[in-house]
Formats: sequence, C-alpha cells, structure tokens
Amino acid sequence: MAEFAKAFVFDLFGTLLDVASLRTAVAEFTSEPDAFVAIWRQKQLGYAFAATSMGCYEDFDALTARALEYAARNTGVTLDPDQQRSLVRAWNVMAPFADAKACLTELRAADIACDVLTNSTVRTSMEALDHAGLAALIDTVHSVDEVRLYKPSPRAYGVVSASYRCAPDEFVFVTCNGWDATGAAEFGMRVAWCNRLGAPQETFGKAPTWTVSSLTELVPALGILAHT
Amino acid sequence: MAEFAKAFVFDLFGTLLDVASLRTAVAEFTSEPDAFVAIWRQKQLGYAFAATSMGCYEDFDALTARALEYAARNTGVTLDPDQQRSLVRAWNVMAPFADAKACLTELRAADIACDVLTNSTVRTSMEALDHAGLAALIDTVHSVDEVRLYKPSPRAYGVVSASYRCAPDEFVFVTCNGWDATGAAEFGMRVAWCNRLGAPQETFGKAPTWTVSSLTELVPALGILAHT
Repeated sequence: MAEFAKAFVFDLFGTLLDVASLRTAVAEFTSEPDAFVAIWRQKQLGYAFAATSMGCYEDFDALTARALEYAARNTGVTLDPDQQRSLVRAWNVMAPFADAKACLTELRAADIACDVLTNSTVRTSMEALDHAGLAALIDTVHSVDEVRLYKPSPRAYGVVSASYRCAPDEFVFVTCNGWDATGAAEFGMRVAWCNRLGAPQETFGKAPTWTVSSLTELVPALGILAHT
Repeated sequence: MAEFAKAFVFDLFGTLLDVASLRTAVAEFTSEPDAFVAIWRQKQLGYAFAATSMGCYEDFDALTARALEYAARNTGVTLDPDQQRSLVRAWNVMAPFADAKACLTELRAADIACDVLTNSTVRTSMEALDHAGLAALIDTVHSVDEVRLYKPSPRAYGVVSASYRCAPDEFVFVTCNGWDATGAAEFGMRVAWCNRLGAPQETFGKAPTWTVSSLTELVPALGILAHT
C-alpha cells in the first residue's frame, strides 16, 4: 500500500510551540503582556515578509530582537541589553501546545516521519524543541535560513522537498497560520491547517486540503491509520 | 542651483487619502466600522505582501475584494454581491487627508513635480484622485501593477526611477506607512515618513531621511524653498 506521505512537516512557532506563552517572560516588564506579545509577534512576521520582499535577509533571531525593540518602544517599556537578550532567549524555552506531543507520538507510531520547517534558525529551533520535550519526536529540522527567504516564498517550502528529492505533494504540511497554509498549498504541498483560533478561511490563494481545530484531530481527520 | 528633486513621489492610500474614512461606507453594515476597516486594510496589505512572496500576483482591486470578504467573515457581516461591489468602489471615492491639497499646491508652486506611486491600479488611483480633488495637482500616477510586484519590493519602487531614467536618490518618496518608508529607503530613494499616528520608528532596514507628523510640515521641514 502506498505510504500516506514521505513526511509530515510541522511549522514550529505557533503550531507546536505556543507563542502566547511568552506572556510569562514579558509580564515582568509590562502589565499588558498579551498585547505586548501580540505586537512583538506581528512585527516579527511583518519584518520577515518585508525582508523577503525587499531582498534584505536577516535571520529570524535578529528579526525577533528587532521586533522586540519595536514592541518595547510601542508600549513605552524600557529594556536594558540583558533584559532584551533574556526576552529573545524566551523563544528558545517556549511552552509547547498541550496537543503537540501526543500528535507527533501517534504519527511516529504509524511509522510516519515528522519534520519541522521553520522561519527560525536551526539552532534556536533545536533548542526550543529540546526544551519542549519534543526533540526526540522530530526527524529533521529544516530552516528557511538555508535559502535566506522566508515563508511563504515557494523557495522556503522547497527546502523540504529538495532535501528529500521528492515532489511537494509527497508531504503533508501542518501549520496554524493561515498565510503559511496558503503558501504551502500554492507550492504544491498537501496542507492541514490547524485553525486553533477559529479564524475565517483565507480568501486569497489555494485552500488547505484539510482543516482541523487542534492537533488532536489531525490523525483521525486525515484517515492516516487506514493507510498504514 | 541644483533642483531639490526630480519629483516628489507620494504614496496614495493612507498618505494622501484617508483609509479610515471608509468607516462611513462600512457603517451601513456593522456597528463597529473602525474595527472592520482595520481588519480589511490589514488583510489587504497582508495579501499584497503574500502575493509578492509567493509569486502569485493579483491586482490590488482584486485583493481589496478578497480582503473585504475576509473582514466580513471575520466580523460575521453578510454582504450580497451588490454590497460587496459598492464597498470595493468606496476606495475610488475615499476622502483626502485635510493637509494633502495644500502640500501638493505648495510643492507645485515651487516648480516641483508631484507624482504618485501606489500598490493600487492606475484606474482606481486616477478615479480616487479625481474624486478627492487632487488629480490636477499630480503629474504622473505610477503603479506597481506594471511589474506585478507590490511595495516594498525594490522593483516596485523602480517603476518610478525607470520611467524617468534617473537614479533613485533623485526622488523624495513620501509615505505614512513605516514599511513603505523602509522599502523606499532600501531602494535608495530619499524618504520623508509622514508619521501621522506617532508610531515608533521601524527597527529593521534603512531609516527615513526625514520624519514629519503631517504633510503640512513637509515643505518647511525639508527646506525645499531655500533650494528654489
């Protein structure tokens, strides 16, 4: 029987790891940690999009630091260099979503490889996976850093298929971000959009193949076990 | 005496024309028109960024319609096709900022050409300028539609310099959007960032040459009249 996929490829920050959990580290400096984290994350992604459009790549750790500086200015928070470094480091020790470990374990039990494709650097991602207790469940961490173009550039998704020398549709890409689901689908991957927040479907670009509301639904929704 | 600039090049939506004024058209359908407009605008720009990254260009009128559909879904507003068309058309009849006309008039009185460079289409832009009473003050409308890549791609800004066969630094680009100021500065234009909302300086990419808080400050702040 044909295998279901060469690998399941997970986005990292926002999909396996919970960006909102940064609120704990941020709460030392502001009484509105959720708003601070939202600005920080939005600006970090905005800079990644702009870097790709402008052709001015800097790696994601650098953009995380720049976006932190913007968020601090925006909210009137003053951070000294040690505090800045400590907050940027909070990305390396981020809490996983509660459903991540069981989902990866279930896929691996079905002999399906589980990879990560992230806008972040390999070093930060490996450390974050290790701290989250997920490192042993991930086969390969792919980073867009290899091509210096951020998702949703097709060349960013191409890092995975090139490493396997396989067609894009041999992979299932799993992400919680609507724009990331669109980018992977446009590249030709099968996409499972994990719509944790109940957001509307994007109205631009190819739709995901599957939509689930949590990683707990992933294996049942895709009918994977029937293929193994 | 050397001329101050080959032309002043203005961003259109958000710089000469007030996107927030869409609230009037939107208020027919929702009790929270400002929030609706903010989602609409944010998604429209998000799709423009994504289209450039993904290499899936659609023109700005199309993205405006797609983003409207997203904003409606997001806010639980139901729009029939006529209502959708009517709201997309609201971009063609948007209110100008109160300081736009005087600034353009002052520059032209100093024999400085005033152009527009917009992510929007030439047709929508011309109609919007005409409705706003600004068309007679604008020499040329340049659109990124010519290269099918949105700002902040350097090729989008290159539409202007290519049309004049001049170096980027012969132009002064005026925009209210931080990311647009960064993109034009990275391309090599001199940039006046009109920071209407008192936003923090962007922390990624080249800084603007000048920062003003309204278009009323532009001519005095740049010392243009001393050069003419």
